[in-house]
Amino acid sequence: MELNFRSAIETDLPHLVSMLANDDLGGQREDTSDPINHAYVSAFNSISKDPNNKLVIAENGKQLVGMLQLTFIPNLTHTGSWRCLIEGVRIHQDFRGQGLGTKLFEWAINRAKIKGCNIIQLTSDKQRPDAIRFYEELGFVASHEGLKMKLVR
Amino acid sequence: MELNFRSAIETDLPHLVSMLANDDLGGQREDTSDPINHAYVSAFNSISKDPNNKLVIAENGKQLVGMLQLTFIPNLTHTGSWRCLIEGVRIHQDFRGQGLGTKLFEWAINRAKIKGCNIIQLTSDKQRPDAIRFYEELGFVASHEGLKMKLVR
Repeated sequence: MELNFRSAIETDLPHLVSMLANDDLGGQREDTSDPINHAYVSAFNSISKDPNNKLVIAENGKQLVGMLQLTFIPNLTHTGSWRCLIEGVRIHQDFRGQGLGTKLFEWAINRAKIKGCNIIQLTSDKQRPDAIRFYEELGFVASHEGLKMKLVR
Repeated sequence: MELNFRSAIETDLPHLVSMLANDDLGGQREDTSDPINHAYVSAFNSISKDPNNKLVIAENGKQLVGMLQLTFIPNLTHTGSWRCLIEGVRIHQDFRGQGLGTKLFEWAINRAKIKGCNIIQLTSDKQRPDAIRFYEELGFVASHEGLKMKLVR
């Protein structure tokens, strides 16, 4: 399957939210209301305005088949290294098991290299053993604990 | 001990690099050359220019006692939530065991709330069990694997 990669545009949002929600964990925390929850539009606008954030879509023709978000971070650690953080990875349920995740990550890893990153990192919920195995097969090392705190405001 | 928090300035850099390097893991990957490795200055400039990155210092009078970096990230996931990522946490070796880490984190968590973040997250090397316990005592949950890939360019 031929994949093209591009930045998301606002009219993609309902499809992206639908992909994020179509998942055991995502289904518990995303909002597939129609019209779209304005928080998604607001987040999309913040991402689009920030040169260090890229919301990326993989498509086959006009069919959206995958997504992820890249955040490029300048860090003082590791002798002043840029890092690329990956979040919100999904492959459309109709297109899983065909190696598209690998192609999407190969593209993302290359994009991080072009940006000058020395480290690429992500966290994966321990309830997703298949995802963790996928990342390890790509060459990621589960060297760290991924610690999270939900904030109540 | 009275702590004040402020953004780092360029003349802090040698002290910050020294704190980052004064650590079993940091000692293997930081460069304490004098004059300072330009990669630190370059990273510092990138951090300073980016409104979503803050390199924060805790000081007692003129004594630098702690540091961390905050990165504020707009994400589409979790119904369009902002996250706060924390990296490069150090307490000066002369001031450990006095609760300063807790004070630094209380400040950082409050800063993330003010920014409107719903999630605060970090990764901690599995070789740092004391650090992981410290974060868990603060209320972080080690729900995720922290996966890293070093990029060779």
